Amino acid sequence: MIDVRPVVHILGWIVLMVGLVMAIPIATDYLEHDAEWHWFAGTSAWAGFLGILLVLGTHSREPLDLTLRQAFLVTTFGWITVALIAALPFLSMDVSLTDAVFESMSAITTTGSTVLTGLDTLPDGILLWRALLQWFGGVGILALAILVLPLLRVGGMQIFRIESSDSSDLKVFTVFRTVSVLAFLYGGMTLVCAALYAEFGMTGFDALTHAMATVSTGGFSTHDTSFGYFNSMPMLWIATAFMIGGSLPFLLYAKATTGAWRPLVTDSQVRGFLVFLALAGVGLALWLQHQRDLPFREALGLATFSVTSVVTTTGFVAGDYTEWGPGAVGLFLVLMFVGGCSGSTSGAIKVYRFQVLFLVVRAHVTHLFSPHRVVLIKYNGQVLPPDVTTSVLAFLAVFVATIGLFTIMLTLMGLDLVTAYSASVTAICNVGPGLGDIVGPSGTFQTLPDASKWLLIAAMLAGRLEVLPLLVLFNVAFWRH
Amino acid sequence: MIDVRPVVHILGWIVLMVGLVMAIPIATDYLEHDAEWHWFAGTSAWAGFLGILLVLGTHSREPLDLTLRQAFLVTTFGWITVALIAALPFLSMDVSLTDAVFESMSAITTTGSTVLTGLDTLPDGILLWRALLQWFGGVGILALAILVLPLLRVGGMQIFRIESSDSSDLKVFTVFRTVSVLAFLYGGMTLVCAALYAEFGMTGFDALTHAMATVSTGGFSTHDTSFGYFNSMPMLWIATAFMIGGSLPFLLYAKATTGAWRPLVTDSQVRGFLVFLALAGVGLALWLQHQRDLPFREALGLATFSVTSVVTTTGFVAGDYTEWGPGAVGLFLVLMFVGGCSGSTSGAIKVYRFQVLFLVVRAHVTHLFSPHRVVLIKYNGQVLPPDVTTSVLAFLAVFVATIGLFTIMLTLMGLDLVTAYSASVTAICNVGPGLGDIVGPSGTFQTLPDASKWLLIAAMLAGRLEVLPLLVLFNVAFWRH
Repeated sequence: MIDVRPVVHILGWIVLMVGLVMAIPIATDYLEHDAEWHWFAGTSAWAGFLGILLVLGTHSREPLDLTLRQAFLVTTFGWITVALIAALPFLSMDVSLTDAVFESMSAITTTGSTVLTGLDTLPDGILLWRALLQWFGGVGILALAILVLPLLRVGGMQIFRIESSDSSDLKVFTVFRTVSVLAFLYGGMTLVCAALYAEFGMTGFDALTHAMATVSTGGFSTHDTSFGYFNSMPMLWIATAFMIGGSLPFLLYAKATTGAWRPLVTDSQVRGFLVFLALAGVGLALWLQHQRDLPFREALGLATFSVTSVVTTTGFVAGDYTEWGPGAVGLFLVLMFVGGCSGSTSGAIKVYRFQVLFLVVRAHVTHLFSPHRVVLIKYNGQVLPPDVTTSVLAFLAVFVATIGLFTIMLTLMGLDLVTAYSASVTAICNVGPGLGDIVGPSGTFQTLPDASKWLLIAAMLAGRLEVLPLLVLFNVAFWRH
Repeated sequence: MIDVRPVVHILGWIVLMVGLVMAIPIATDYLEHDAEWHWFAGTSAWAGFLGILLVLGTHSREPLDLTLRQAFLVTTFGWITVALIAALPFLSMDVSLTDAVFESMSAITTTGSTVLTGLDTLPDGILLWRALLQWFGGVGILALAILVLPLLRVGGMQIFRIESSDSSDLKVFTVFRTVSVLAFLYGGMTLVCAALYAEFGMTGFDALTHAMATVSTGGFSTHDTSFGYFNSMPMLWIATAFMIGGSLPFLLYAKATTGAWRPLVTDSQVRGFLVFLALAGVGLALWLQHQRDLPFREALGLATFSVTSVVTTTGFVAGDYTEWGPGAVGLFLVLMFVGGCSGSTSGAIKVYRFQVLFLVVRAHVTHLFSPHRVVLIKYNGQVLPPDVTTSVLAFLAVFVATIGLFTIMLTLMGLDLVTAYSASVTAICNVGPGLGDIVGPSGTFQTLPDASKWLLIAAMLAGRLEVLPLLVLFNVAFWRH
């Protein structure tokens, strides 16, 4: 049996922190004399109490040192715990428990699918809570993507392990310094983004909440029409820039602060990502100009924003791109799978996995007609060990199979094929909007049956954890011995 | 540069053989006093003449010995050549060249998508030609799947290489004996199937053409409503049995003739395939009984037939299963991907690749939480070497990516998402019908724009060759040196 005491201990700290973060909307609501502050204060106190109970109840004099299995448990149950606790404030608004958990899970996984409508009239405390959850979700994802998943060797992430010497003192120091630098960068980017939004006409509140949703590649807006509400081309370009900012490898930013800024330009993944965005944006802009008679400048802004929004798995909407014709629908369906770079806040498959896949397939094909040639697979200047390529391929197969499984289950609940399939994809890839009338950019997830919402909650979690850590928990051998 | 003389020599023989096979519908049409026999005789003579020219023009005294690269060329261009030559007879019917090649490629890849309507009123010669093409296509697929692809090591097929000693005399003998046994079995199964069909009420002509389309898992019917025309439950069960017969590993049949029939029962792939069919059939039958108020016996026959028809990539239709509700649509979309066993006439991903994928993922997941345990992957009693698992995973990734690529291209041509996606899947998996009003079980591929038909022709070929041999030809290094 696994010793779950340290796991519960960490979960206790997490619950406590969620309770503390609730103090921010309490303050806002109190200052604005909204009645919700009572509810927030109640949930905050309750979460704080529960957190302290868990922390104290599992306290031990031994140093906290997690085994690999305990790390898997913390990873999965940490997200589930936050989703459940952070759902409580939404209950103040007379929504069902299902909807509250859906909104909360969508926020902390920075997916950005919403079941709330009439956003423009919601109390500021709730809107701020959604933005905060996305923003802190982004912090959690950075920690997950940079520190946890590479150590757990999930989906080939081991190639992004932080290089460190064997001395574990140095390692702790490196980790601590890295985390501080990252938090500083992440916060700084958010503030700059908010300042720019405000400069070009957003209110202070909109600027802050949208900046949080931009840099975390979350995509929650405070308006039902998302970026369509502002009708401002400069804002689209600012959003595009900061969505990209949130999708680049944050470790390279950290390195850049020490003067090593070159990798930000020469890194294979960054290059591939930017070239892909540019090609897709310009291509779609030309198509828009041709099909919709838009001036090229406007088409370029709209196309680049929409492509970036979906590829970085943010999910902001400036106009319903599914009305740009069947070709655009097909394009956006495929774009949902792409994702940003590893070690960023974005979700989905991510650029490096496509690059590794391409290299593996090319080497495999060469090997087919030249069986005696030794083909080394080099990525970003390093030879890839076989366990990395196997990890990447296994991840891809599992990812696709998971989407198929969720699609079937959703159709069994009566959803039509486009809704079921695109809802699965958008949930597992943590994008936000799907396709079709119901879950598309102009639709809402609210009308879906409750059981399908729970499925999508599971799908968002699975996608954010990159599926494999969940499979680990479904393995009988994991729990034995 | 590659020496293409031996390649053209073999293609010449193939053209000559197609010309000879055309003699069968000539005879039929002549006996029935149909006017088409002139056209058939013309194309037959022309193909025979071209074949002889190619064979003689590339004749050489050296023994015919193909290099690996030449084998790849023969594999791909063999199918393309047959598709082009075999399309000629269809031109007698006032269809476009596109439609003729589509029908021909659909037949020889045993896909079974059709662009012809009013099948019931077509001349017997044309109907027989379609059945013959599927039947001989099935022979070609068996040769491809049992002799060629394992040698080329495509998609993990190397595990099915025929065991033989090092003596190459023995090897030739083994191959020759194997091929003869297989041809005998394949022909025998077809005759038994035809006899049973006739016994339960089909005309001799219908029995023969449908038996050819059944055992080859092709799915062409001589009636627009396919098996719905006969409205006979025993016929559905006969078809189910022989579609399964065509989807089992033919090498195991060959072994069974030498007395070693046990593998037919104990083989992991056969077991997995039959269990899967049974579960899916019974599950769907229960759903049908519940949703449609059908008696269970009828529901079971219809469900098992429909599931088997799609899973074995045959594509016969007894009733429009896409009208059984959204859950059925989702189910059938996923069933299209499954396929039968390796070394059979069926297409798609095939059962053993799913089994290998499952084993690889399970080993990978175990390795994630027990990094120091050595996990051997055993399949069918043998340890799988790493190159097999990599081949299987690379195949799956390429297969899925190919479907995505064709889907985008088809949507760019204006097809809606469900049509584009399901047409890609059904073509690449060589099933036949897709989903939706246009390409679904009640629709027809005829109304699609010409450019999209050519894309689907390429997709059917790519699927039948298991994609990778085509990628080999797109590799620059293949053509150099």
